[in-house]
Amino acid sequence: MTEFFPGIGNIPFEGPESRNPLAFKYYRADQKVLGKTMRDHLRFSVAYWHAFRGTGGDPFGPGTIVRPWEKGGDPVEMAIVRVRAAFEFMRKLGTPFYCFHDRDIAPEGKTLAESNRNLDAVIKVVKEQQAETGIKLLFGTANLFSNPRYMNGASTNPDAHVFAFAAAQVKKMMEVTLELGGENYTFWGGREGYQTLLNTDMRRELNHMAKFLGMAAAYKKEIGYAGTLLIEPKPKEPTKHQYDFDAATVIGFLRQYGLEREFKLNLECNHGTLAGHTFHHEVELASRYGMLGSVDANSGDTMLGWDTDQFPMDVKEAAMTMRVLLNQGGLGSGGFNFDAKLRRESTDLEDLFIAHIGGMDTLARGLLIAAKIREEGVLDSMLQDRYSSWESGIGVEIERGKTDFKALERWALAEGEPKSLSGRQERYENLLNGYL
Amino acid sequence: MTEFFPGIGNIPFEGPESRNPLAFKYYRADQKVLGKTMRDHLRFSVAYWHAFRGTGGDPFGPGTIVRPWEKGGDPVEMAIVRVRAAFEFMRKLGTPFYCFHDRDIAPEGKTLAESNRNLDAVIKVVKEQQAETGIKLLFGTANLFSNPRYMNGASTNPDAHVFAFAAAQVKKMMEVTLELGGENYTFWGGREGYQTLLNTDMRRELNHMAKFLGMAAAYKKEIGYAGTLLIEPKPKEPTKHQYDFDAATVIGFLRQYGLEREFKLNLECNHGTLAGHTFHHEVELASRYGMLGSVDANSGDTMLGWDTDQFPMDVKEAAMTMRVLLNQGGLGSGGFNFDAKLRRESTDLEDLFIAHIGGMDTLARGLLIAAKIREEGVLDSMLQDRYSSWESGIGVEIERGKTDFKALERWALAEGEPKSLSGRQERYENLLNGYL
Amino acid sequence: MTEFFPGIGNIPFEGPESRNPLAFKYYRADQKVLGKTMRDHLRFSVAYWHAFRGTGGDPFGPGTIVRPWEKGGDPVEMAIVRVRAAFEFMRKLGTPFYCFHDRDIAPEGKTLAESNRNLDAVIKVVKEQQAETGIKLLFGTANLFSNPRYMNGASTNPDAHVFAFAAAQVKKMMEVTLELGGENYTFWGGREGYQTLLNTDMRRELNHMAKFLGMAAAYKKEIGYAGTLLIEPKPKEPTKHQYDFDAATVIGFLRQYGLEREFKLNLECNHGTLAGHTFHHEVELASRYGMLGSVDANSGDTMLGWDTDQFPMDVKEAAMTMRVLLNQGGLGSGGFNFDAKLRRESTDLEDLFIAHIGGMDTLARGLLIAAKIREEGVLDSMLQDRYSSWESGIGVEIERGKTDFKALERWALAEGEPKSLSGRQERYENLLNGYL
Amino acid sequence: MTEFFPGIGNIPFEGPESRNPLAFKYYRADQKVLGKTMRDHLRFSVAYWHAFRGTGGDPFGPGTIVRPWEKGGDPVEMAIVRVRAAFEFMRKLGTPFYCFHDRDIAPEGKTLAESNRNLDAVIKVVKEQQAETGIKLLFGTANLFSNPRYMNGASTNPDAHVFAFAAAQVKKMMEVTLELGGENYTFWGGREGYQTLLNTDMRRELNHMAKFLGMAAAYKKEIGYAGTLLIEPKPKEPTKHQYDFDAATVIGFLRQYGLEREFKLNLECNHGTLAGHTFHHEVELASRYGMLGSVDANSGDTMLGWDTDQFPMDVKEAAMTMRVLLNQGGLGSGGFNFDAKLRRESTDLEDLFIAHIGGMDTLARGLLIAAKIREEGVLDSMLQDRYSSWESGIGVEIERGKTDFKALERWALAEGEPKSLSGRQERYENLLNGYL
Repeated sequence: MTEFFPGIGNIPFEGPESRNPLAFKYYRADQKVLGKTMRDHLRFSVAYWHAFRGTGGDPFGPGTIVRPWEKGGDPVEMAIVRVRAAFEFMRKLGTPFYCFHDRDIAPEGKTLAESNRNLDAVIKVVKEQQAETGIKLLFGTANLFSNPRYMNGASTNPDAHVFAFAAAQVKKMMEVTLELGGENYTFWGGREGYQTLLNTDMRRELNHMAKFLGMAAAYKKEIGYAGTLLIEPKPKEPTKHQYDFDAATVIGFLRQYGLEREFKLNLECNHGTLAGHTFHHEVELASRYGMLGSVDANSGDTMLGWDTDQFPMDVKEAAMTMRVLLNQGGLGSGGFNFDAKLRRESTDLEDLFIAHIGGMDTLARGLLIAAKIREEGVLDSMLQDRYSSWESGIGVEIERGKTDFKALERWALAEGEPKSLSGRQERYENLLNGYL
Repeated sequence: MTEFFPGIGNIPFEGPESRNPLAFKYYRADQKVLGKTMRDHLRFSVAYWHAFRGTGGDPFGPGTIVRPWEKGGDPVEMAIVRVRAAFEFMRKLGTPFYCFHDRDIAPEGKTLAESNRNLDAVIKVVKEQQAETGIKLLFGTANLFSNPRYMNGASTNPDAHVFAFAAAQVKKMMEVTLELGGENYTFWGGREGYQTLLNTDMRRELNHMAKFLGMAAAYKKEIGYAGTLLIEPKPKEPTKHQYDFDAATVIGFLRQYGLEREFKLNLECNHGTLAGHTFHHEVELASRYGMLGSVDANSGDTMLGWDTDQFPMDVKEAAMTMRVLLNQGGLGSGGFNFDAKLRRESTDLEDLFIAHIGGMDTLARGLLIAAKIREEGVLDSMLQDRYSSWESGIGVEIERGKTDFKALERWALAEGEPKSLSGRQERYENLLNGYL
Repeated sequence: MTEFFPGIGNIPFEGPESRNPLAFKYYRADQKVLGKTMRDHLRFSVAYWHAFRGTGGDPFGPGTIVRPWEKGGDPVEMAIVRVRAAFEFMRKLGTPFYCFHDRDIAPEGKTLAESNRNLDAVIKVVKEQQAETGIKLLFGTANLFSNPRYMNGASTNPDAHVFAFAAAQVKKMMEVTLELGGENYTFWGGREGYQTLLNTDMRRELNHMAKFLGMAAAYKKEIGYAGTLLIEPKPKEPTKHQYDFDAATVIGFLRQYGLEREFKLNLECNHGTLAGHTFHHEVELASRYGMLGSVDANSGDTMLGWDTDQFPMDVKEAAMTMRVLLNQGGLGSGGFNFDAKLRRESTDLEDLFIAHIGGMDTLARGLLIAAKIREEGVLDSMLQDRYSSWESGIGVEIERGKTDFKALERWALAEGEPKSLSGRQERYENLLNGYL
Repeated sequence: MTEFFPGIGNIPFEGPESRNPLAFKYYRADQKVLGKTMRDHLRFSVAYWHAFRGTGGDPFGPGTIVRPWEKGGDPVEMAIVRVRAAFEFMRKLGTPFYCFHDRDIAPEGKTLAESNRNLDAVIKVVKEQQAETGIKLLFGTANLFSNPRYMNGASTNPDAHVFAFAAAQVKKMMEVTLELGGENYTFWGGREGYQTLLNTDMRRELNHMAKFLGMAAAYKKEIGYAGTLLIEPKPKEPTKHQYDFDAATVIGFLRQYGLEREFKLNLECNHGTLAGHTFHHEVELASRYGMLGSVDANSGDTMLGWDTDQFPMDVKEAAMTMRVLLNQGGLGSGGFNFDAKLRRESTDLEDLFIAHIGGMDTLARGLLIAAKIREEGVLDSMLQDRYSSWESGIGVEIERGKTDFKALERWALAEGEPKSLSGRQERYENLLNGYL
């Protein structure tokens, strides 16, 4: 059996003082945190498209990253070799999950029928590899944005023909996801949006998108797929405006069309920051509305205006995300998927390991911090105190809907001015820094 | 009777070639456009807070703008003088509407009761001025963000006491709006948001905001107020995040809490751009969901990150907005309110006229262009052609819900690849430029 | 002889009311404006890389634009066919100039020597085409950013080997530019910057860049090239930070290293906006320091954070740019080069004409407006009045260096407070709108 | 003697595990790091304007922060009381430096002469307080942006009268700084820029600014002031464009006018991020050009577009800044000045201590990390290896100017393609995270 990453074994845990680039400093899969292993808290996943199809190409130059196994030849056979490389990588890295698009894992054919056959051929090997390694599919997803046919959108294309084509592609990929036991199925509408409103009937396109998602939800039931359907918001890029702008927009859209019980959200950090939100905001919002399904773990550069998809390296941000997850009792069928790519200049084979190790350590460290914050309870108790006026008197009456404007006016006239209560932001910030 | 703007008479229309700064070049109130006067299309309104309470202060220095009538003394008497100045200004300018906050038009007292009395005293004169001039109130609104008591929010304050206080203030202002025949009542939640998530229970605050708005809708019915309740979105500033982020967020929020039939939106251009949207996007979105109630006409600087509230001076943008309005058949009870302020350096008295004239001309010109585009029909017919696939065959079946993924897959396998259809963005852009 | 654009003839002028997408509405090459033809004012140039090598690819999908002449086969022969298509296009469009990168016009070979031979073979045909059509080379430039060898920079690469390679490439391309009679030679340092400061010795890299440019200036003299050397600033993308951030940074850099007499700037609108500046700012700054050499005419979307390279469609912005150019008496050896690309969805062959026509009309219209502003003189005279205090008294003394802090203190104590002088921004804005 | 902060003593050091909000966790003034005390490395300074004149006002509401000693009455007497409060605060906090504007510390009078007298009266007490506490003036500065007379700029005002007035004000404040032994004098040109280019002669204004700074440098010599003159860049806010945009712009400007030996830079983090740069970038750039004089320690919110002036709370960023400082051997006469303000909602008196403690701990922690990175040497040695090609062969020849394009072409043709060398960004990032 070919070894694709010779000289690199299973990545060990060596602790925070280690300077070994190929060792974990914080992530220890079996370590229990608040009664659950890190593995089960974090449910790490490798994104096939970046890790095994990323070449380092950008709008100003072609790929720089050359993998020794990429020898060309028959594209289906090449795809199968690549699958083996990927499973070796994930086994050595120790991630329990992965995910892929239909067109990443198997080559598109000349016709839809041929594309489907290609996919079946590759999936056969994927299934064997899953069985052999125990690595599972976090989610399947269809690529409805790369092929030129989707340049004006997939379900929101002005041409109904493209809508039908997209439907056929998603149908097949939902079947594949079911077959592989994928725990979720994700929709990212990369070109569901517009480049200029001048040539766009926005509402009609939104109606079509809702129709499409409704059919997907129906088909899920028809085939008995029990996983979660996820929508991934992004505000822009490649289009000027994407309809799934951010968490609030997608939740509102789902409610508008009565789809809110059929879908949850797969939130990506860099997509949140492109929409002008911290990732903490996005996960908190979705979580508190019961809509947080999974996380695309990466990070962006808030001073750059495109999706840089860097590996998550900010411990403070990771701690805030983990705090939300602990509060909602875990991600359920979701996980932390590294939708992150190597920098174009990171061309060494070991960089692929190093980048994932960095991301896993950052999130593991965030988990440890969030758990400590939770166990000490100081921050939670400050927060509870801040809202204590809602636990009695007029606060309770308001929350229970037992009062109205007239009664509140009487109350306010009688009680007079409220006291000034400091928001204490710097105190909260210092406290948080104390845990980092 | 004192004249506040001596030497300036009613602003005349002089046509596009005039270089007279105190004349209209495009706005001619009685000119009919598509069968309706410009006055009735545009329903211009002056924002009392900027036009008569703006001083040019900014975070780096106090006010620069000194008005001859601002002589201090008893604040209620001063407020009444100011009202007279405002009505003279609006009469000479020829705007049929205006709007104000409770605390702009009358001074806050030491207690809520005193504030209410102050307001009543000033409103008496306002009512006389309305009767005398025929100028009407576009909307009333309560200032729930300036007073330090609201520093942590009004309806979303962690302290229930503040919620009650805010309720009392809105109750009173809704009564005043009713009394003055105000056509709408607006909510702008300037501090309904957070500065840091660390000290915030976001969902609880959202619940409180919904309760508050629900009570307002109930009180409206109770007092028999027939105007429209409006919510004005803004993404940030003064807070880091405002809950009424943008049109999509507010519509989603209203649906979440079952309030979507009680409120419409008052959209402001600069608030849209701060959220990362063109104003065209915001009005189109709200309009097509039936939620566009009124417009705060201004413009921002997309390269600056704060609300510059400049007068609208971009004709192309104005044309796009007007196109949306013509499509929805006008703004109903809404209007174009100049929520725009003089630059801090524009200290001449006549600058106040000049700035409003510029905004009115820009929007009037936008209206003329949008009407011409509509009458010629070239752009509309290009757009219709682009979506023609939805008018027959598979397109109709999808829109009517007569198909599903299985049928679409069969169809796609049979029909093969869709044709490549150019989006023709540059052609649309050139065509639009041809009308400017 | 093959016709590459059958059915499209020379683009005629039809005037502002024409709706013919393949006609000019404002650009009339021979029309005189302030004593000079539009052709000579504007010196339009087609950018070979976008117009003939652009495929519509973006980071989320491959090319969509398919040209009938792109039939593959031997890359040098294909390059020659493409050159013929390009000259037919430019002839029909009526642009007097074009420009290209070495690697756009001829394919890179396996070795530098082979690349040079390829370039020579293609340039032979280019030279014939130039002679035949009279179309001239606005500038030549070397692509030092696409090939993976330049991923970490060219002259700023941590590896001296890459520096040498880049030097060799520029040397050759300077020779080619000389041979073709190119009026300028441009440096755009697409990867001269960093992705992270962590792995970067910034000052050492800046020193190397200065060395490189110094050698280029020396080589120019050695070969007797009389054209202008241009540097094109851009703040970021593809790198996180590019050393040639904006006009001020590049001018400062040139002064730091004593190169300010050897180079001028080639300014691009979209690069300016990415740096947080209006294009008007960039051209004004460079012009007033005597450093404005040429313009890359395009426009960006200020609400998107990447280089969208759209065709310039904003008439007001064009007018402001033209005002600067009229003030400096034209661009000299520079011109307006359409460094602008078709939208990925604009796949019709005629879209290439339509987009350029739109850009040319926009700039021609800007020129007409700027000329009218200049001829009427109202705006200029307002501006002159504003600075009149510098034409006598203390103003003259300050400008002439005849005073100091002590004398000014005495003067200020004696004269007292200055008067408040309105900046009149809205009046200027209205006035400008009056010319649009 | 009145105690202004009763119940709060000298802030103790309690170490990282302490949860006492009024204790240091990392800053220990006397602890030696790389042979120098933390006190001497960091040279912390309190900004009088934020700490003692900040009220929490923002564009949407007046001040919220009420200090018990602010009792009104005679403004000079009130100013003196405030000085005493400030020195008590600084003494208890343990910061060795502070800084102020003329108009923060003493009230502006009706005339310049009266303002000068007010300043003298207050400075007398300041001098006593300095002597008593040993606290020193890091820098003095004149406020040339708050008073309405400066609305159109100070040295760049279109009115020469204002230039003269500003000169008089700076002259006086330079004298005061000399008298108090201030170690630096700072220029922040808050309104030296423009709101619209339409009404602006940019180059003339830049010339005036240079004249002004030249006179200041001359006056410095005349009065024998030995401190450093500092310019503080900021890109925008309050103006649309400020001439001192960023470090590179200011350095370029100084060179343009031959002033580069008379000034250094005072860099502020939030100003850097508003210009699109990391603070690390700004300090590295200035430092490597020998122009880094002092630091305004704060932080902004990169997703907000205005100067939030928050206390620095990001340890990773602090470590990067400290790394630059250790590399340049300290700040010389400069220091870390907390140009940071309490959030508007942080109204408790103790919040003022807590915020500064947080900032001091963050920077102290950054220092400890930077020292450890330096001592271990792993990162530095990776960096050195990356540039090793410049230490021999062709690299040395290039750096020494011993080669040219022709020789490099020969070399490149002979040597062939450079090897691909990974930039290893993720490895550097992981390594850095290992020290946090």
